[in-house]
Amino acid sequence: MIVVWFAIACAVLAVLYGLVTTRAVMSADAGNERMRQIAAAVQEGASAYLNRQYSTIGIVGIVIAVIIGILLGWHVGVGFVIGAVLSGATGYIGMHISVRANVRTAEGARKGLAHGLSIAFRAGAVTGMLVAGLALLAVAGYFLILLGIGVEGRGMIDALVALGFGASLISIFARLGGGIFTKGADVGADLVGKVEAGIPEDDPRNPAVIADNVGDNVGDCAGMAADLFETYAVTIVATMVLGSIFFSAAGEPGQVLQIMGYPLAIGGACIIASIIGTFFVRLGSSQNIMGALYKGFVASAVLSLIGIFIVTQLTVGLGQIAGQAYTGLDLFWCALAGIVLTGLIVWVTEYYTGTEYRPVRSVAQSSTTGHGTNVIQGLAISMEATAIPALLICVAIVVTYLIAGLFGLAIAVTSMLALAGMVVALDAYGPVTDNAGGIAEMAELDSDVRKTTDALDAVGNTTKAVTKGYAIGSAGLGALVLFAAYNQDLKYFIANPDTYTYFQGVELDFGLDNPYVVVGLFLGGLLPFLFGAMGMTAVGRAAGAVVEEVRRQFREIPGIMEGKAKPEYGRCVDLLTKAAIKEMIIPSLLPVLAPIVLYVVILVIAGRSEAFSAVGAMLLGVIVTGLFVAISMTAGGGAWDNAKKYIEDGHHGGKGSEAHKAAVTGDTVGDPYKDTAGPAVNPMIKITNIVALLLLAVMAHS
Amino acid sequence: MIVVWFAIACAVLAVLYGLVTTRAVMSADAGNERMRQIAAAVQEGASAYLNRQYSTIGIVGIVIAVIIGILLGWHVGVGFVIGAVLSGATGYIGMHISVRANVRTAEGARKGLAHGLSIAFRAGAVTGMLVAGLALLAVAGYFLILLGIGVEGRGMIDALVALGFGASLISIFARLGGGIFTKGADVGADLVGKVEAGIPEDDPRNPAVIADNVGDNVGDCAGMAADLFETYAVTIVATMVLGSIFFSAAGEPGQVLQIMGYPLAIGGACIIASIIGTFFVRLGSSQNIMGALYKGFVASAVLSLIGIFIVTQLTVGLGQIAGQAYTGLDLFWCALAGIVLTGLIVWVTEYYTGTEYRPVRSVAQSSTTGHGTNVIQGLAISMEATAIPALLICVAIVVTYLIAGLFGLAIAVTSMLALAGMVVALDAYGPVTDNAGGIAEMAELDSDVRKTTDALDAVGNTTKAVTKGYAIGSAGLGALVLFAAYNQDLKYFIANPDTYTYFQGVELDFGLDNPYVVVGLFLGGLLPFLFGAMGMTAVGRAAGAVVEEVRRQFREIPGIMEGKAKPEYGRCVDLLTKAAIKEMIIPSLLPVLAPIVLYVVILVIAGRSEAFSAVGAMLLGVIVTGLFVAISMTAGGGAWDNAKKYIEDGHHGGKGSEAHKAAVTGDTVGDPYKDTAGPAVNPMIKITNIVALLLLAVMAHS
Repeated sequence: MIVVWFAIACAVLAVLYGLVTTRAVMSADAGNERMRQIAAAVQEGASAYLNRQYSTIGIVGIVIAVIIGILLGWHVGVGFVIGAVLSGATGYIGMHISVRANVRTAEGARKGLAHGLSIAFRAGAVTGMLVAGLALLAVAGYFLILLGIGVEGRGMIDALVALGFGASLISIFARLGGGIFTKGADVGADLVGKVEAGIPEDDPRNPAVIADNVGDNVGDCAGMAADLFETYAVTIVATMVLGSIFFSAAGEPGQVLQIMGYPLAIGGACIIASIIGTFFVRLGSSQNIMGALYKGFVASAVLSLIGIFIVTQLTVGLGQIAGQAYTGLDLFWCALAGIVLTGLIVWVTEYYTGTEYRPVRSVAQSSTTGHGTNVIQGLAISMEATAIPALLICVAIVVTYLIAGLFGLAIAVTSMLALAGMVVALDAYGPVTDNAGGIAEMAELDSDVRKTTDALDAVGNTTKAVTKGYAIGSAGLGALVLFAAYNQDLKYFIANPDTYTYFQGVELDFGLDNPYVVVGLFLGGLLPFLFGAMGMTAVGRAAGAVVEEVRRQFREIPGIMEGKAKPEYGRCVDLLTKAAIKEMIIPSLLPVLAPIVLYVVILVIAGRSEAFSAVGAMLLGVIVTGLFVAISMTAGGGAWDNAKKYIEDGHHGGKGSEAHKAAVTGDTVGDPYKDTAGPAVNPMIKITNIVALLLLAVMAHS
Repeated sequence: MIVVWFAIACAVLAVLYGLVTTRAVMSADAGNERMRQIAAAVQEGASAYLNRQYSTIGIVGIVIAVIIGILLGWHVGVGFVIGAVLSGATGYIGMHISVRANVRTAEGARKGLAHGLSIAFRAGAVTGMLVAGLALLAVAGYFLILLGIGVEGRGMIDALVALGFGASLISIFARLGGGIFTKGADVGADLVGKVEAGIPEDDPRNPAVIADNVGDNVGDCAGMAADLFETYAVTIVATMVLGSIFFSAAGEPGQVLQIMGYPLAIGGACIIASIIGTFFVRLGSSQNIMGALYKGFVASAVLSLIGIFIVTQLTVGLGQIAGQAYTGLDLFWCALAGIVLTGLIVWVTEYYTGTEYRPVRSVAQSSTTGHGTNVIQGLAISMEATAIPALLICVAIVVTYLIAGLFGLAIAVTSMLALAGMVVALDAYGPVTDNAGGIAEMAELDSDVRKTTDALDAVGNTTKAVTKGYAIGSAGLGALVLFAAYNQDLKYFIANPDTYTYFQGVELDFGLDNPYVVVGLFLGGLLPFLFGAMGMTAVGRAAGAVVEEVRRQFREIPGIMEGKAKPEYGRCVDLLTKAAIKEMIIPSLLPVLAPIVLYVVILVIAGRSEAFSAVGAMLLGVIVTGLFVAISMTAGGGAWDNAKKYIEDGHHGGKGSEAHKAAVTGDTVGDPYKDTAGPAVNPMIKITNIVALLLLAVMAHS
């Protein structure tokens, strides 16, 4: 039990770090009157959007909570609510800080690069630590409460899985809704501003400019926070479930609680490491911003490894684990594999999205021959970018499996995610600097200030891309752990037909030569494509509406272009809020309903055994194509974005050249790729898997 | 045996039809001197390209043939050579007719729509009947020869599989090489001609215009012919292999030859039906060209069903089949399912690529807000377009499996492919009319003639898109049959460890919970993405080279733009020939080497059982993502193409508007999607599967 209390203490520490750091950020100077006005408009828009988003999700959430409560018991329903509420809170608080740090970063940038970096990074770190802290608090705290009220065995597992589901459901809505909002605004503003009216980005004459800044926060900050909260919570839960299954089977009851506490302890140790790591983020004499951020990341990773080693020794011991074929030290090696994989994925993502390397330069080069060749090359790079991550993931699967079986894989993914606090800190830094640049532009600060915010923002683009690589890699592996839990659960129920009468006579045939498995793989494989299509279409529609609205304002409000009249910023925010909320519902329900519908259809056509096989295959199918779709979209989008930046830095004719126009088209295409459809695939993959797990729980209950 | 002779007779009939029709086409008037000159340039370029392509493939082919001969015996090596040579011959002869029919179609168009249609369709029908005829002749003929020289059992299976491999290898080179050539030319010509120089398509002042016309033939005609030859041959072979395995197991030796003859008989019957169907292609009083072509298609389908019913009755009988759980009538129902699936896929593809429906119109609409939104909407449609075909394929799998197990599925796919003659006829019609339009433009014929060729060509775009949907659908299902053959082969070898000593101690675990299966699925799933990336990059590079060359000619040859000096057409053809040949090699070897490398790596790490599981999963992984990648690329490309056409027809501002420029960008992006990477995924999927089958054969031999 002490392990769980340790985890809770670390989680509380993270929340305290968040509070203290928030106070520090808020105490910074918020700039002049004009800057405060602009920031207030962004704050208002962001709050208005998130309030509406959460009210809508709230209705869906309450319905599902009641259904779960009725089907599986109130402690399971409460688990769902805890996951949902804390996931939502993480995004909400993170966004709240972010929209206040932006103006302070702009003001800080007036004093110098180090000042600006410090405020922006600390604002990001608040979100990061809240993600890790609240997620760990939710899982460890509810685990303890359930133990306290005497819920054990399957009831415990069901309640924790429901907690994960709650987090996932919020996450897909936040990712997709936020993604549609932010990219609808971004694409719309760019098309009508940069391309049609010929005014620069962040120009206050553009009626969509506030919406664009709001979007950065609700997408990259709130969306990413909810996403990683979910992956974190779900992975720890799945690892606990797997541990409980494997160790129950080994017949060592005392061990089960201990092994369930182990992933919680890893999470706790890594939170401490991440908090220490944040203090390593310091601008050296070289003034290298990326270097400063990476120093923090590397420090966190190394300290995390030390922490994991210690908690491994203290919880499961380094020697042979009773009833298992592996030692505690083996589990540590798996954790090491997870951290190394994280580093390699970060490195590969940077290769594919950084301006120094071949991929981005090839996209920039292809812009010289036109819009078409830019898009062709960008699509090619996006597909190519899947290769090395997929190979790395395969190597990680085989290595950890050889060391310590499926549980080894689960521990590797847990360790990977234990770095989430630091990674989210790097990511949430992005929208703050992006906004700071916008505010500097709109408030007409000195061009020196804009240069400083631009330098901070350029790094933000890289960290955002890198985080997405990490998010999808960990999501894919986390989903594999969930899939393993589905398998093991199913085997357990089938092995105990007297208790779980629904499973009497079920024979599991997961063979690839079973046509229901083939059908399940196809239909699972289809989901990311269909989901991606819906996300892209939604952005297209939202952006189209923004274009129409901005054109209308240019037409009907005389004097905007001369700077004499103020555009109606609020109308663009309203319009996008409505569009995002409306468009997010159906795609988000796709992964919730797909496994249920498939189960029922195959059940009717063929039978229970076939239905379980088909659903299992669907889970793996969605992971396989989901991984490729998400990696290709996020990496491709990053490459297009930076190819444009590379040209703007003066290559191939620089700003205003034909190559630049082509690069802007590529960037526009990449926007919904990398910020809407691609990242929203992460929670989608996991929801499909977690719904299947709950489906099993419902059947075991019946 | 009489069944096999029947199939051979039908195949010979198809070849005779080809000869007679060729004579009829060639006897048509080839137009005036100017038209002949242009056609001669296209003929010369196409021959030069195909000669070089085949010489290069020849070298690769000879090496592989020798390796196969050494490892598996000379009769297997000869099988490979037969498949390769006849597949190549089909493409070569088809292209030969096509580049001669183009000018005759242009001349025919001067006399009226019906004349032009008649020549273009009959030219396409020559290629179509040669595909079906030569493929059936190859399989049935070699089957008979092998029987005659006493090769039976595994030796027979290996030789037929090698025949399929020969066809596949030619097909991937032809598809990819042809695809790179045609789209390098098309994209390059468009970028520099339409976009930069502002001259219309097919303008003789554009130095890349002849290369563009050559490309239509080597891509859409020779490439598609080789592709469907391969799918046809491979599917019939796989069905024969499955039949032989299932019926050997049932222990009725006399039946085995009979059941192996059954797919051949289906092929024969459908050839007769298709030949009769060609006579139904007649322009009615409504002057509806698409209607005329569909009349032929529907007639072929209905007559094929009647034919299949008759051959089913005559070969396996309609009653219970000894040793199996199904009747002959059940097999007929499966054949019906295959034909219905073909019709539905044609219909869905037309929905997604036709100008009358929502998808194309939404792409056209999104062009009004710019290049970026056009591409975003096109990508969304391309992903969405995978949904219904995937669902249809799943329904077909489940239905045929429930009726008659895996062999039922195989018969359904065989029937689907038995329509290939008619489908290729519709497709090969496309490049002929496309070229005819080009010749009319370049030879400055009356605008009335151009209008007639445009009407013919517009339909060609639809038939090309529809054929691609059919090609990928049938390729996916054909690959599933190959995958089933891999499974059954493997089980057979494992069940007979005394004969096949390599398989002693191998335990097959195809369970989705086996991590090697997961790794295999991931790596198989990666192949289409990597392959697609290579194809797209190659087109980008080739098009870039064309742009540079054309710009150079405009710069260095004064008077081109005024029409006073003749551009050096040949240099663009040469340049593309070299680029296409160079770029096609590595991607084509990817699916050949992938299963071998994976097998060896997993063998070393884990063992034989794990290696076989991983390779099996790779086969299914490549089918699953391959299907989605290929459908999305071909459908998306078709939608972009027709969205441009829709705007050119006067919507959203028509030609020259901003929307039109955006639509041209989309069309350019769609070009390598639909004509290079997408269709080349078909043979890639099958090569991966067939190489795995040969790998098994080599091990069984050792």
